[in-house]
Amino acid sequence: MAERLRQDDRRRQLIGIGLEILATKPIHALSVDEVAARAGISRGLLFHYFATKQDYYAAVVRAAARRLLTAAQAGPEVAPDRQLRSTVAAYVGFVVRHREPYLAFFRGGAGADPQIQAIYEEVRDALTDRALAATGLPASPVTRLAVRGWWSLVESLAVDHSGERAPAVASEALVSYAVDALPGLLAGLDRLTAPAI
Amino acid sequence: MAERLRQDDRRRQLIGIGLEILATKPIHALSVDEVAARAGISRGLLFHYFATKQDYYAAVVRAAARRLLTAAQAGPEVAPDRQLRSTVAAYVGFVVRHREPYLAFFRGGAGADPQIQAIYEEVRDALTDRALAATGLPASPVTRLAVRGWWSLVESLAVDHSGERAPAVASEALVSYAVDALPGLLAGLDRLTAPAI
Repeated sequence: MAERLRQDDRRRQLIGIGLEILATKPIHALSVDEVAARAGISRGLLFHYFATKQDYYAAVVRAAARRLLTAAQAGPEVAPDRQLRSTVAAYVGFVVRHREPYLAFFRGGAGADPQIQAIYEEVRDALTDRALAATGLPASPVTRLAVRGWWSLVESLAVDHSGERAPAVASEALVSYAVDALPGLLAGLDRLTAPAI
Repeated sequence: MAERLRQDDRRRQLIGIGLEILATKPIHALSVDEVAARAGISRGLLFHYFATKQDYYAAVVRAAARRLLTAAQAGPEVAPDRQLRSTVAAYVGFVVRHREPYLAFFRGGAGADPQIQAIYEEVRDALTDRALAATGLPASPVTRLAVRGWWSLVESLAVDHSGERAPAVASEALVSYAVDALPGLLAGLDRLTAPAI
């Protein structure tokens, strides 16, 4: 019976409902009663699992982040010199397949919500670590700054590419363009670190 | 008297209160009663100006977007070949001065909220138009794709630069790095448009 779900399963069920509803509805339009009703539990029991609506939302976004990071990785069979391309291709594919939830969870979010901002940071940092590992670059502060910026560029390309106004560009070509943009951005970094004249 | 404010002034007042509160509080934690109380009006009167909480939020984000676009422009006195740099410098300066509200209104936002997503698109498009005008580039679909991506890179640099973990880089150097990144990104565009082999 639904009432007999174990704690972990119940949490997972509630998060799954949130992933579904919040992909198409902004957080301030989310009704906790609706979530509880869908799960067949009381509003009070929902708040037993998540202390506040904000905590529930953070748990849902965290789950979305895990899915993104699981999807956006090169397989273990990928040769070192293809890992960056493979990671970017997997990331772009994820955004194309899940555009609405991607926008809802990673470009939208919850405004000035420190929990959500922390999750965004974790995702961006994890992706940046993968790019640094794939390129063998040292993770100096300015290199990270540039690689994080490059991921923002890649995100924009992927989101635009999957949108209504997308120019007719093959995903493969988009991935190549994105991957090939990184060396130029890194080569320009000496401008950032050069002492002022 | 506060009760006698004209309609436009009242709207402006309510939006001003929202700009202040929502810079530090996520939308789902915003109490409409708090906004009404601060304005010295009833909750009912607030809903006379904004049909729903979502509409109120959209009006606040739209006001933040207007402020950003007003701030992020080159002055009329700037020579054509310095306009892009001047625009980027003004944009980076805005993000540095208003980091928290910037994150709240433009990186956070309202998840799957079509009104907010439309405002984001308008801002990104307006900035892209400015960059295209400053560089004299034709606004082809792939050029727009690249320039929009470049603005995402600039945003990431500006946000990281103003954050706690920022590497020690002068704003001036950051602006130069951002401006100088654009030609390389545009030069790579032939990869996107070249016919597949």
